[in-house]
Amino acid sequence: MDPQSVERPPSVLLAHRMQGHPVLVVGGGVVAQQRLEKLVPTGARVTLVADHFTAAVEQTALQCPQQVRLVRERYRESHLNLEPYWRLILVCLPSGAANHSDDAKGQSKSESDSEKVYRDAKRVFGAQQSVNVADVPALCDFYFGADTSGCPTGKGEGQLGSMQLLVSSNGVAPRYAALVRDELVRHLGELPLAQSLDRLDELRAAVREEAPGPEMVAVRMDWVCALTDRLGLRGAASMDVQEELKKFKDYCKERGEQVKSPSQDN
Amino acid sequence: MDPQSVERPPSVLLAHRMQGHPVLVVGGGVVAQQRLEKLVPTGARVTLVADHFTAAVEQTALQCPQQVRLVRERYRESHLNLEPYWRLILVCLPSGAANHSDDAKGQSKSESDSEKVYRDAKRVFGAQQSVNVADVPALCDFYFGADTSGCPTGKGEGQLGSMQLLVSSNGVAPRYAALVRDELVRHLGELPLAQSLDRLDELRAAVREEAPGPEMVAVRMDWVCALTDRLGLRGAASMDVQEELKKFKDYCKERGEQVKSPSQDN
Repeated sequence: MDPQSVERPPSVLLAHRMQGHPVLVVGGGVVAQQRLEKLVPTGARVTLVADHFTAAVEQTALQCPQQVRLVRERYRESHLNLEPYWRLILVCLPSGAANHSDDAKGQSKSESDSEKVYRDAKRVFGAQQSVNVADVPALCDFYFGADTSGCPTGKGEGQLGSMQLLVSSNGVAPRYAALVRDELVRHLGELPLAQSLDRLDELRAAVREEAPGPEMVAVRMDWVCALTDRLGLRGAASMDVQEELKKFKDYCKERGEQVKSPSQDN
Repeated sequence: MDPQSVERPPSVLLAHRMQGHPVLVVGGGVVAQQRLEKLVPTGARVTLVADHFTAAVEQTALQCPQQVRLVRERYRESHLNLEPYWRLILVCLPSGAANHSDDAKGQSKSESDSEKVYRDAKRVFGAQQSVNVADVPALCDFYFGADTSGCPTGKGEGQLGSMQLLVSSNGVAPRYAALVRDELVRHLGELPLAQSLDRLDELRAAVREEAPGPEMVAVRMDWVCALTDRLGLRGAASMDVQEELKKFKDYCKERGEQVKSPSQDN
């Protein structure tokens, strides 16, 4: 099998919560460094295994000792046991680096270091283990695509608030995906995203407090959805949360739903 | 812990290749149906477990017997063994559905069916197992966000080619994320995306054929990146692939890199 050739039906795009979860990165070069920069802000705890690290990786490890651990050794299978599980395993070794690991017995001659890590990971943790081998599409359970973490436009996070964007070309043209991402971030720059999300967050918390309980999930959700549609992309930023909350109470009252404090109390 | 309250640092956004991979969906209602519509085009093999399915789920199962299996039973732990592993486990049960499973011994009184599936999955497959419980943010290893699979603008796939988009508000405002997604797809509608990706795909395949071998990965990648930047969002659609390929051969020759057929052969 040509490791560069892969089927390309659409992927499932997911946003993974990483807070406190362990991630293994095999490699310490520029690609490993890029992965680290993406992972640290998410709260993941990252272990990097390599016999050499870039200066930037070394510095990040010094600055974030709770989140970044450097293991200055060439990868061997026992490194998989450094944590009881890994949310993600990322292999960032030079392409074609072949068969240099210490415990090479039983390893086929043509197998690269990358392939060995991939195979070890699946054997130890099961096929449900998510692994990405940089530059070898056939050994990628997932692609990173172009996202807005550390977006080179330099205004990514502040401008987008808690919103994140992923553009994937499914391995067809990663750089073009990055151009599209940059264009979309520029376009979004004209919208009051951060303020809109803050207001909507505030509103949802207030609505949840008024009508708690799992039996009210659908009612809350439908109402917030309808309001969001009505406000639109620009209207959410300037909504009066207290005013809308009052309407929610009236809405519940009309429907005969129990809320904590009926509207007339105000 | 309030199951609605979760920490919200940024997530890691990933595009998962699902071709041939098994996915478990517990539930057969409207949410399960939405998940199914997202999964079938990706080539995933989906097992749904529920005592009732929507008509749309039933129909999809009839149309895609190789990909969709319906297990008409209320969830119990042994359903986890229907496949040797699950790439993803998705729980789509009505919120607050409490403690109705058949094998309830040992299950705490307050535990919902959803919580039980989540706990079973982690115990059987390890914490590396990715699980999403709809409507319970605290039991979501990942969020779906708003993506372009089955995008309601109706022109999603054809227009975007093999490109996909994910907008995540990290659970803050899902509907607003959907509005942003729709706006971005509209904006992208002005760009020749599908054609650009086709040309770039063709070019990359040709370049790979000219300069195969893992030691050339970096050379190929740098050259294609530089060209993509130069062409920009609109230029890629109209590039002359053979012309660019010739330039690549010259570039390699200048650098003294071995290519299959030097430029002067043309």
